[in-house]
Amino acid sequence: MVKGYMNQVLRVDLTDGRITTQIFSEEELRKYIGGSGLGTKILFDETDQFTDPLGPENRLIFMTGPIVGTKAVNSGRYHVVTKSPLTGIYGEADSGGTFGPELKRAGFDGIVFSGKADHPVYLWLNNGKAEIREAKNLWGRDTFEVDRILKETHGKDIVTCSIGQAGEKLVRVAAIMNDGLEGRAAGRCGVGAVMGSKLLKAIAVHGNMPIPVANEAEMATLVKKAAPVIVKNTAWTKYGTSNGIQGAEQIGNLPVRNFSRGNFAGVATINGYYMADTILTKRFYCEKCVMGCGRTVEVKEGKYKTVESGGPEYETIGIMGSSCLVEDLCAIAKANELCNRYGLDTISTGSAIAFAMEAYENGIITKKMTGGLELNWGDPDVLVSLVEKIAFRKDIGDLLAEGTANAAKTLGGLATEFAIHVKGLDFPAHDPRNAVGTGLQFATSARGACHLSSFTHDFEIGVTFPELGYSKSPDRWELKGKGEFIAKFQNVMGMFDSLIFCKFIVYGLGDEIIKTMLGWVNATTGWDMSFDEFMLTGERIFNLKRLYNVKHGISRKDDTLPPRILNHKRGTGGAADNLPHLGLMLNDYYQYRGWDEFGIPTELTLQKLGLAA
Amino acid sequence: MVKGYMNQVLRVDLTDGRITTQIFSEEELRKYIGGSGLGTKILFDETDQFTDPLGPENRLIFMTGPIVGTKAVNSGRYHVVTKSPLTGIYGEADSGGTFGPELKRAGFDGIVFSGKADHPVYLWLNNGKAEIREAKNLWGRDTFEVDRILKETHGKDIVTCSIGQAGEKLVRVAAIMNDGLEGRAAGRCGVGAVMGSKLLKAIAVHGNMPIPVANEAEMATLVKKAAPVIVKNTAWTKYGTSNGIQGAEQIGNLPVRNFSRGNFAGVATINGYYMADTILTKRFYCEKCVMGCGRTVEVKEGKYKTVESGGPEYETIGIMGSSCLVEDLCAIAKANELCNRYGLDTISTGSAIAFAMEAYENGIITKKMTGGLELNWGDPDVLVSLVEKIAFRKDIGDLLAEGTANAAKTLGGLATEFAIHVKGLDFPAHDPRNAVGTGLQFATSARGACHLSSFTHDFEIGVTFPELGYSKSPDRWELKGKGEFIAKFQNVMGMFDSLIFCKFIVYGLGDEIIKTMLGWVNATTGWDMSFDEFMLTGERIFNLKRLYNVKHGISRKDDTLPPRILNHKRGTGGAADNLPHLGLMLNDYYQYRGWDEFGIPTELTLQKLGLAA
Repeated sequence: MVKGYMNQVLRVDLTDGRITTQIFSEEELRKYIGGSGLGTKILFDETDQFTDPLGPENRLIFMTGPIVGTKAVNSGRYHVVTKSPLTGIYGEADSGGTFGPELKRAGFDGIVFSGKADHPVYLWLNNGKAEIREAKNLWGRDTFEVDRILKETHGKDIVTCSIGQAGEKLVRVAAIMNDGLEGRAAGRCGVGAVMGSKLLKAIAVHGNMPIPVANEAEMATLVKKAAPVIVKNTAWTKYGTSNGIQGAEQIGNLPVRNFSRGNFAGVATINGYYMADTILTKRFYCEKCVMGCGRTVEVKEGKYKTVESGGPEYETIGIMGSSCLVEDLCAIAKANELCNRYGLDTISTGSAIAFAMEAYENGIITKKMTGGLELNWGDPDVLVSLVEKIAFRKDIGDLLAEGTANAAKTLGGLATEFAIHVKGLDFPAHDPRNAVGTGLQFATSARGACHLSSFTHDFEIGVTFPELGYSKSPDRWELKGKGEFIAKFQNVMGMFDSLIFCKFIVYGLGDEIIKTMLGWVNATTGWDMSFDEFMLTGERIFNLKRLYNVKHGISRKDDTLPPRILNHKRGTGGAADNLPHLGLMLNDYYQYRGWDEFGIPTELTLQKLGLAA
Repeated sequence: MVKGYMNQVLRVDLTDGRITTQIFSEEELRKYIGGSGLGTKILFDETDQFTDPLGPENRLIFMTGPIVGTKAVNSGRYHVVTKSPLTGIYGEADSGGTFGPELKRAGFDGIVFSGKADHPVYLWLNNGKAEIREAKNLWGRDTFEVDRILKETHGKDIVTCSIGQAGEKLVRVAAIMNDGLEGRAAGRCGVGAVMGSKLLKAIAVHGNMPIPVANEAEMATLVKKAAPVIVKNTAWTKYGTSNGIQGAEQIGNLPVRNFSRGNFAGVATINGYYMADTILTKRFYCEKCVMGCGRTVEVKEGKYKTVESGGPEYETIGIMGSSCLVEDLCAIAKANELCNRYGLDTISTGSAIAFAMEAYENGIITKKMTGGLELNWGDPDVLVSLVEKIAFRKDIGDLLAEGTANAAKTLGGLATEFAIHVKGLDFPAHDPRNAVGTGLQFATSARGACHLSSFTHDFEIGVTFPELGYSKSPDRWELKGKGEFIAKFQNVMGMFDSLIFCKFIVYGLGDEIIKTMLGWVNATTGWDMSFDEFMLTGERIFNLKRLYNVKHGISRKDDTLPPRILNHKRGTGGAADNLPHLGLMLNDYYQYRGWDEFGIPTELTLQKLGLAA
């Protein structure tokens, strides 16, 4: 029994309905921790380049980590790992809310789905018991309804995750949603389509089993010490993540018109302050969260009327708002609500919509292809309509449901010019021309253009991380040193994703981020994990993801950015003239990582990390 | 009758054997000049994205220009334009020797081949008469033999061009060779395969018709004035183009080990000085040349024994020598002789060999695929063997005969990492990390990685061109201003390729390069072409090539460089640390060109150039 863990991972083969458990040794757990790390280990061992992401042989892995469900602040998350049907390579997504801790309290560190059911099913977990159940009455319904019906069936205190119609229809940007109306999403990489491909509609969980903690008293003391500091330092509570919209536009981080412009006056009506004045009804805290960046909103009337439910975050507003030139917050909230209901990644869906608008402008997508809809920039009706079309694969939505990069490939020619993605994953609302490390991060992240793998965008514009040697934030346009910078942060953030911690914790803990986390981890597990082991473990996890991608033919040629980001300036605003010189950074990055010039980890590096064959 | 022209282009339809002539108006001639320009105009009008490069509908266009065959110094060239079977887009290649002027003296400004013969043929041109002849006795023979046999048939004073076995076998890096043993080559873009696809083995030409010149006396005076200056300033006579091998290695321009290293000690035995001391027998002057950079060599004994014939140039030595780590000049001379015989582009062939060596090192090409041959770096036997295998499509040669980029695509995965090309055309022996404008040139040239489209490599390391505003050579690593720099030189060099002048003339004429050329052109044609018209015409020709490529889906995404060049440093030597920041240069380049952010010429630009639809 390793403390901090429930010491069993549930294995569900949907083809034959066999339910088993898998136990990992302490050595394995300490090597891969949980969440993203342990999920990657399982995916790496059980799938490869011949695995069809939407075939029964793919694995859909839900994972918690050792601190999930403990007293540790911001530990209420779970991680999904799978081979992505959007990108064809390593895929992962994570989500907050209460599903992760509840899964653990139900007695499992995670669930690995394999196979494919012969009819729609859901999994019902209740304090150590697991049951595959008929989901005929759930199929075809949205995630809000599924949550409601499952609560009617199993009781109000259960937690659910599910897919909406998008996942059922194998939309490659489909998400897995949890916590019902709150609309928490494991959004990226089309994880919802994998769930759909297995005819798995939902997971309902109820659990109140104790989570073993090695040193309860110490844990309580440590959390008591840190929590008020975090609360004091956080900026999220009042205006949520979209408090940053205006600043991001000013500095040059916010995408405007599919990443082709520098400024957007419309930010005045789509930011967090405006939201607080208009549609905000309350805040949402994930389990063990002391910040409450989550928004609950309601559009009470008009054509964009919504129910009271989870509101749009910074990323959603950046991509569905400014990147589409939409300045109507109610329309964005409606589009967001629909994404939550249908189970769609708001980032990739919004990105596909901005792409479609630009393709329409260039005559590549025509009125004949859209069912008569004119995809004009900034039209809020178009935004809402396209979400609907993508979720149900209606006319042009069928193409966009394949994801921006795939759609661009099908359209051919010029269309691939403004498909803003890396390795098939659409950009989130952060611009590498604003902070060049973001470009290196996007180019090298295992899942493609991901802002969470190094989570450095704020660390290049003033936030410090002394434990990593950044008592001063590096200049956002300086190339030198960014290789090491991004690699270090990727290693650290891989640990966040494996333990699992919400990354917003970094803003609150100042000089002792890792030290604080280590305190909690060691109090929970009883381990004596050092700073060095923490870093090395993060590095191991990152390299294992890379090895998985290398099996799929990924190398340096794929570690790149779209031509628009490399060549086209924003033109106005706070990052008007900067273009990231990716080549220079990439070379330093490989060197620091101990990868060869092709971007393949060397034998020596693998030996150091205990990953050598 | 426009002076300087023979005022007819021969049109040969090989399908039905119909031979006609086409006359261009003075307006058309002045707009597109000849050579590359007029060839492009014909290709643009008669082929498109649906044309199979190896199908009968492709055009194979041989073109001279208005000053070809006149007294003008360095004017003994011809140009071949076609849709490239190597790259699938715009293709061109040009060659010196005496074929171009002879074609003109035979009464034609050019020949446009269309269709496909039903058995091997050659074209016999004799003072205004044209005849398609049976080539059964030539098919299967190398270009030296073909030249010999055709001279036996038609007389010693004819000039021939032909394809060898490589062109017959549709090897996509096959060249068209002329002037028999001298081995002059229209080498690039697989023009020889197009000739082979039409079952056209050779063209034999005899002509002594006068070339009309508007002002003979002025022409004589002007040439008399310029020629001695050129002779005095040229550095080529004594040691040929490969006088530059050692300097190129030192400064960081020479490819080493498929562009992966900075230095190569082997340059000591593969440079022009060493050649002069060993295998050089005499120098070769193209018609009207006063420099004589051409080498005639003979390896008199040993396993690399050759006949006395055209020797390897700088590009050949750079790619077949240092880039393959081969330091045996006799082996390079032998490989060069075989390329000349079989009709292969030494650059793309050598590049495919370097690529194969690296693929072999990485286990991607195996001994099973090579017929037992171990493709070890630097092995001179491997170099010679692979030329043979490529020409005859033997075992691994069959794959390499598709060209490096295509072979890499077939091999997949890591192989595409070290395929050093742009748009499918292999790099010549110039490294963009040595002079960043070279990178911009490679990225934007119509035919792919071409060192002749702007011909700027020496203009970034000291050579000046005051008439273009470069009284001082720009710094080779400076990015600023390189957009304008490359665009201007491409416009000028497009005029060189259309008139046609050998580009080496630039080294001799100092401050009055264009002025001198304009003097000759106007004396020949009787026009009053100004500096501005000269530049605008060059710009028009360059843009027409771009438009042709745009029809084929080419845009900014294709204007790039291989990852190795963008990301991987040479590491040692004179350009150890520099990596070209292509994005910055490309943006300036598009702006200067009047192209939109996708790299498409704007309507306004096309109107300015008289190219608007």
